[in-house]
Amino acid sequence: MNQGIFITMEGPEGAGKTTILHMLGELLTDMGHSVLITREPGGIPISEQIREVILNKVNTAMDSRTEALLYAAARRQHLAEKVLPALSEGKIVLCDRFIDSSLAYQGYARGLGMDEVYSINQFAINGVMPDLTIYFDIDPALGLERIASNGEREVNRLDMEALHFHEKVKEGYMLIIEKWKERFFIVDASQSLERVLEQTASKVYQVISREAASR
Amino acid sequence: MNQGIFITMEGPEGAGKTTILHMLGELLTDMGHSVLITREPGGIPISEQIREVILNKVNTAMDSRTEALLYAAARRQHLAEKVLPALSEGKIVLCDRFIDSSLAYQGYARGLGMDEVYSINQFAINGVMPDLTIYFDIDPALGLERIASNGEREVNRLDMEALHFHEKVKEGYMLIIEKWKERFFIVDASQSLERVLEQTASKVYQVISREAASR
Repeated sequence: MNQGIFITMEGPEGAGKTTILHMLGELLTDMGHSVLITREPGGIPISEQIREVILNKVNTAMDSRTEALLYAAARRQHLAEKVLPALSEGKIVLCDRFIDSSLAYQGYARGLGMDEVYSINQFAINGVMPDLTIYFDIDPALGLERIASNGEREVNRLDMEALHFHEKVKEGYMLIIEKWKERFFIVDASQSLERVLEQTASKVYQVISREAASR
Repeated sequence: MNQGIFITMEGPEGAGKTTILHMLGELLTDMGHSVLITREPGGIPISEQIREVILNKVNTAMDSRTEALLYAAARRQHLAEKVLPALSEGKIVLCDRFIDSSLAYQGYARGLGMDEVYSINQFAINGVMPDLTIYFDIDPALGLERIASNGEREVNRLDMEALHFHEKVKEGYMLIIEKWKERFFIVDASQSLERVLEQTASKVYQVISREAASR
């Protein structure tokens, strides 16, 4: 149906995925590919309005199920207005976080249930799953140290409480990868940026060739 | 878990359900019951903000799946903040439209699929189904005539196009009633208001007694 290639990047904060995503975008553009780099809400007015409702500090009474439905709604609109048109023009779409983030963070770590969060996201994406998902694997404690060092501060007590949450998120991702093995490529994000980029790019080229051959 | 009774009213516009709902509320209050009359978004700030996104005329690009997810999100928040607290205080909650409207209008008449719209609403309501749903049954053409006569105007060409849609909505409701027979009470809404109120109230008293006996 679409001719483009849909690639998503997943993993905890501090794993370097956003940096790699932009470097990869440049590499692919230099190779002559037409690339769209995006993340939700991605400048889509309806999705931005939905995010405003989610993030509005006045809305302290927000129920976690309401929040999950709003994230799914913002995802749907971003997909319909930005991702799908790009794919139908044959572009390579690199998306920073997608369905797996909702499953790992809201479904697993926050305890709403992965199957339940999957059901509303299934409705939102209506069959459009990524061709490839790159998981940036890093020890949660190391990811946290990286964030702290980027911010030039020490890891504090709140970070240590956050650590338990990030370990839950990682457990969630491991269950997701187990379920969709063939869609995932796991890269060891504790390596140097150069090594991570090299391994990620190599996998992406392979998927591009495979897709080109199969069409 | 909750001690109150949750009653919803469904059916097409022009069937008189909102009028009956308020009359019924007065009757129950006079009998000494504590009653909450409500409808989504029901003055709940988060749900009102979500409705603003849905109804904002600037948002012409809104995808029908985004819209369905937003309605489910507004429903969840209204339920969590208003309906559930009232039920836990033992109130009788009379709600003008609930899950069945989404199934009939969006799922069936607009063609998104009843099972799919049900799945996101199941997530939203998390098991809180009405104890009783009153369906105001009326021939779509008659309902349309009533609306036109209330507005003191003739039925026009656009109304006739709308008629086809309302016939689809009725088909949708019939499928829903078939699925949840024991939850529904169907009232012939082409009768006089007095007859409709009498039959509706009689059914509601019966459900109140049944619930009182079973607790």
